[in-house]
Amino acid sequence: MKVRKAVITAAGRDQRTMPLQRLVDRDGVSKLALQIVVEEAAGAGIEEIAIVVCPGDEAAFRGATGDTPARLSFIPQAEPLGYGHALWCARNFTGREPFLHLVSDHLYVSRSEKSCARQLVEVAEAEACAVSAVQATREANLPYYGTVGGHLVPNRPGLYHVENVIEKPTPTEAEQKLLVPGLRAGHYLCFFGMHVLTPAVMEALGAGTGGKRPNLSEALAGIAPRERYLALEVAGSRTNLGLKYGLLVAQLAVAFSGKDRDEVLTQLVGLLARQQRSEG
Amino acid sequence: MKVRKAVITAAGRDQRTMPLQRLVDRDGVSKLALQIVVEEAAGAGIEEIAIVVCPGDEAAFRGATGDTPARLSFIPQAEPLGYGHALWCARNFTGREPFLHLVSDHLYVSRSEKSCARQLVEVAEAEACAVSAVQATREANLPYYGTVGGHLVPNRPGLYHVENVIEKPTPTEAEQKLLVPGLRAGHYLCFFGMHVLTPAVMEALGAGTGGKRPNLSEALAGIAPRERYLALEVAGSRTNLGLKYGLLVAQLAVAFSGKDRDEVLTQLVGLLARQQRSEG
Repeated sequence: MKVRKAVITAAGRDQRTMPLQRLVDRDGVSKLALQIVVEEAAGAGIEEIAIVVCPGDEAAFRGATGDTPARLSFIPQAEPLGYGHALWCARNFTGREPFLHLVSDHLYVSRSEKSCARQLVEVAEAEACAVSAVQATREANLPYYGTVGGHLVPNRPGLYHVENVIEKPTPTEAEQKLLVPGLRAGHYLCFFGMHVLTPAVMEALGAGTGGKRPNLSEALAGIAPRERYLALEVAGSRTNLGLKYGLLVAQLAVAFSGKDRDEVLTQLVGLLARQQRSEG
Repeated sequence: MKVRKAVITAAGRDQRTMPLQRLVDRDGVSKLALQIVVEEAAGAGIEEIAIVVCPGDEAAFRGATGDTPARLSFIPQAEPLGYGHALWCARNFTGREPFLHLVSDHLYVSRSEKSCARQLVEVAEAEACAVSAVQATREANLPYYGTVGGHLVPNRPGLYHVENVIEKPTPTEAEQKLLVPGLRAGHYLCFFGMHVLTPAVMEALGAGTGGKRPNLSEALAGIAPRERYLALEVAGSRTNLGLKYGLLVAQLAVAFSGKDRDEVLTQLVGLLARQQRSEG
């Protein structure tokens, strides 16, 4: 299986400025969030990228993608019918092919030489099935993420057969349905904001109408019993930029792992020192 | 003298997304940079605000100002003729009145109960003349700022008569023309990105044509010998968001002085610890 296409969702009505947020990447280059996501996809071998947007944002977002070898197109989500529907708006673009899906409001920092998206795409291509990137996440953060339950694939550390998917589970639901043997106590496998999806998942997103459309977790929960569906713990971390201090935490995570680490730490200590002085 | 109007310049072609950058304010509320600047002006008693923009940005910026009691208008700068010209585009708006001028790419943190803009406006109203907010700034940062030379007004700590203004002076120029008695060695009075200006300054900005227009520092240098012009060291700090890590430093400065200080420090320590662990 070859993954050639990617769909980036950036149509959230409450976060229309998110793809335009400015961050300095690991190499010390200032970029907009959308450009970083596009580069994550292109760096994983993707040739064609569709960005699903709120109508009217095409021009601003086109100016925010930077230079990329991938072919870019924009797909308007005409009505605000949610995240699952935004993805479904790209069904004609993806057609009968598997595709990489990235959200536009997460930032990824890989701990390996391969980017997070590349790690995911390589596993999906080798296993020839849908794979969600996941991360062992503390129970306290369950309210923010889709979460999977399942069990390790034998002799494949970090790779899981998914049996169950619940969007933003309560701690009780998680304990009853999503415990995964082998994880640290109090931790669950939460979505990383990055998936390789199949035409069957796209079809499942088209079920229902109006306000009763499935979100991605619901579509995946329907797929899990019917086709092979895996979850991969990628070597890396993700920050949800949409959380209150998401941009700050993302910028610090990138800076601490990049070439400007010392410069940023120095500025940080200077700020703390000046602030202590003005208090004292 | 009463200062009722403010002009915010946000027409820089290379930084069109700057007013749309998201920051969490001292009270823990997530806002866009432009909204924070508008609130700084409105909180200083300003009733009418004009924002000078690159044509086409009106709609996006209008959605970014938040709720404000001040009357807002947008003035397009039709051609990219620089910062001084952008300000001059507001000449019909300011008319025969003094006005507060704020740039849209600086963030201010006051160390007093009064905002930085309020401190400045109160002094300008009492002294009935143009006043630039300044900050004692290390020589190494001269390449980023307009800088003033002058001497302390007797018995008025932090208030200076301005005799000279140079935009981004070299260290040699600064030492020859901008040394201010009473400042720490190696420090100069650099612009804070906040001024109260008079109709005479606006008129001076209109001199020259095409590419030979004066910038604000040149206009003020021409005014200094002709009318009373002061500089005020405000109790606060400013961060230039346009610098490489400007957004990060601004967010940290605000967070360290606000209600979420402990939460942010905890996240910071957690990030550093996780990063050490993944290296070890």
